Amino acid sequence: RIDGERLWGSLMEMAKIGATPKGGNCRLALTDLDREGRDLFVRWCREAGCSITVDRMGNIFARRPGRDDSLPPVMIGSHLDTQPTGGRFDGVYGVLAGLEVVRSLNDTGYEVEAPIEVAVWTNEEGSRFAPAMVASGVFAGVFDLDYGLSRKDVDGKTMGEELQRIGYAGEAEVGGRPIRAFFEAHIEQGPILEAEDKVIGVVTHAQGQRWYEITLTGQEAHAGPTPMPRRKDALVGAARVVEAVNRIGLAHAPFACATVGMLQVHPNSRNVIPGRVFLTVDFRHPDDDVLSAMDAELRAAAAEAAERGGLELALEQIWYSPPIAFDADCVAAVRRAAGANGYSHRDIVSGAGHDACYISRVAPTGMVFVPCENGISHNEIENAKPEDLAAGCQVLLEAVLERANA
Amino acid sequence: RIDGERLWGSLMEMAKIGATPKGGNCRLALTDLDREGRDLFVRWCREAGCSITVDRMGNIFARRPGRDDSLPPVMIGSHLDTQPTGGRFDGVYGVLAGLEVVRSLNDTGYEVEAPIEVAVWTNEEGSRFAPAMVASGVFAGVFDLDYGLSRKDVDGKTMGEELQRIGYAGEAEVGGRPIRAFFEAHIEQGPILEAEDKVIGVVTHAQGQRWYEITLTGQEAHAGPTPMPRRKDALVGAARVVEAVNRIGLAHAPFACATVGMLQVHPNSRNVIPGRVFLTVDFRHPDDDVLSAMDAELRAAAAEAAERGGLELALEQIWYSPPIAFDADCVAAVRRAAGANGYSHRDIVSGAGHDACYISRVAPTGMVFVPCENGISHNEIENAKPEDLAAGCQVLLEAVLERANA
Ligand SMILES: NC(=O)NCCC(=O)O
Ligand SMILES: NC(=O)NCCC(=O)O
Repeated sequence: RIDGERLWGSLMEMAKIGATPKGGNCRLALTDLDREGRDLFVRWCREAGCSITVDRMGNIFARRPGRDDSLPPVMIGSHLDTQPTGGRFDGVYGVLAGLEVVRSLNDTGYEVEAPIEVAVWTNEEGSRFAPAMVASGVFAGVFDLDYGLSRKDVDGKTMGEELQRIGYAGEAEVGGRPIRAFFEAHIEQGPILEAEDKVIGVVTHAQGQRWYEITLTGQEAHAGPTPMPRRKDALVGAARVVEAVNRIGLAHAPFACATVGMLQVHPNSRNVIPGRVFLTVDFRHPDDDVLSAMDAELRAAAAEAAERGGLELALEQIWYSPPIAFDADCVAAVRRAAGANGYSHRDIVSGAGHDACYISRVAPTGMVFVPCENGISHNEIENAKPEDLAAGCQVLLEAVLERANA
Repeated sequence: RIDGERLWGSLMEMAKIGATPKGGNCRLALTDLDREGRDLFVRWCREAGCSITVDRMGNIFARRPGRDDSLPPVMIGSHLDTQPTGGRFDGVYGVLAGLEVVRSLNDTGYEVEAPIEVAVWTNEEGSRFAPAMVASGVFAGVFDLDYGLSRKDVDGKTMGEELQRIGYAGEAEVGGRPIRAFFEAHIEQGPILEAEDKVIGVVTHAQGQRWYEITLTGQEAHAGPTPMPRRKDALVGAARVVEAVNRIGLAHAPFACATVGMLQVHPNSRNVIPGRVFLTVDFRHPDDDVLSAMDAELRAAAAEAAERGGLELALEQIWYSPPIAFDADCVAAVRRAAGANGYSHRDIVSGAGHDACYISRVAPTGMVFVPCENGISHNEIENAKPEDLAAGCQVLLEAVLERANA
């Protein structure tokens, strides 16, 4: 059995790195704090007898040898990067639950048939560098390496440069090797498990996502002497796009999600009519056809807002991640482990994207969800119960062993 | 007569300081570039035989002695600071036209009865530090000195600190001394003179302004697994406020102006539902009653947007500058000078705020407008014709002499 207290202790230790005033974490991808988090993880893994490999995207693999070390590994993993005002569990839990699995096996000297690897995927959040899950995407062959290394933050720094800077530009090729199975444990980040009082979510699917970048260009002019009818106010146009995005989300209830998370105004001066606005759109739906319909609605609404405001429109879909069905055997292994322990559980569709979504393209993959308080995530107040996190880790251990010994 | 070529040359020389790629200027108040601009002005004034005084708000006064130097001065002035993507004429023209008046008088050794002072007012734009015209406001007793020195930029730096840093925290008391008359020349910043093919705008009034700061607070949450009905999306609420502001402006056509110039999203991450949005509102109208009606409409619309979105609302009017009528004698002097020179002219209401608005509370004040291309200002492409600028300066000279010799 896993040690829930040790797992909680490790989570709280990691949460000190980039701790924020309201009890959350800010450990943006490839910052100095991300490096500190990685260093701590690597130290813990070495202490647990693992060997470390870092690939060219900065993905870290900590390996516990198998009885037959020539077998493909069973891999457990998630990410250590967070949102700017993120929580202590999103991603970190999946990584440290993997470490706890290794530590638990070590406690009893349990020899597993296949090697076990704990993976840390670079820049899962997609906050500092878009899109999300970019490094697991390169690993899975969805993006090529150049694309991955050339992603830029708002200051124009690339992932490649920042990997070099923090010392995590490894030498290993990215991907291209067999994995027996991949498992990721994660907080649900939504309200369903808590509402139904279930401890374990058996993740069967993940919804599809489309991300967009939109720029509306009008004309800067003085807010005082410029008559309303002469204006080309990019922010008024952008406001209509924000409202349209929200309307599109509501129109495809109950499953659609539609969000403008980022919006930047130029020149952003109180008495200047905004000449340019940049904004991002995040669309999600479990059904690809609905996601396509939402795409068409967005394009129409943005074109109308631009036309109405006399604005130039540039709209680009920068990311598409289709809906995913996880591997039947891995899903069944998670369900069995939950049942065997008497944990209340239900099948669930992931609302968030996860590294597991991309790894599912190159390996049989399953996910374990545990509840989080009020379904809140991507927020400093994100919270989860030690006993639920321990239960999820126990399920992870058993699902991993089932696949590793199969 | 003034020397239009010399005036143009000085404008182009000053425009090199903080020149922007698209032919405009970025010389934000109390930055190093603002210091460079001030230094150049001070050097030119000394070369023209003026003595320099700097007051505690960083306002600069360059004095040409009068025949009777005990008389209160006739003052000419405007500002050297610009918007982040501002033009070469807004403010600078009024300052350098004042210098050109002094230089022209020097050319012929003309002795004026009263002293003449050319004033540079600190932070007129209100872009780096809100509100606008803050230092002429302190001079006129509208704000107290502590208020002026404690204005903060977005990084939390105060005007007082920044005045010290750039060496323009002078020793003179701010205001409290008699001024015979004050004149400000400025580009119109609106489309009227150009549309009617007039060279001189005789400014009779300036419209009133109200500035607001609004913060909407919702709850950050994950853009993927958070169902639409559970959201408290501060940006959706803010978008409704932006649209309402625009609607209020249109509803009070043709004179109302209503603008959201600045909007900041927190945490501004693509896959996080915005938890907090800060935005500013700029309302203008020549009729104070209409301005009050707009105020009420804004408060209602913002409250409704907050209520509808489950958001907390903080709305503060941070600035109110009532409509102004300029001094009848000064206005008449401008009108006479335009007519005497055969310049086409019309009476006009200023859409922008100007230092002259505050100085009008403590001295008889008048303003001279000249056309600008397409009425565009607060934009790098702001442009004006050398011959119109020269005409405005000639009118300024004659109006100043009429009041100085009166
Ligand atoms: N799990 C998680 O928060 N992933 C970030 C990528 C996304 O936006 O779904
Ligand atoms: N003239 C000018 O641009 N003033 C800035 C203050 C305002 O917004 O009116």
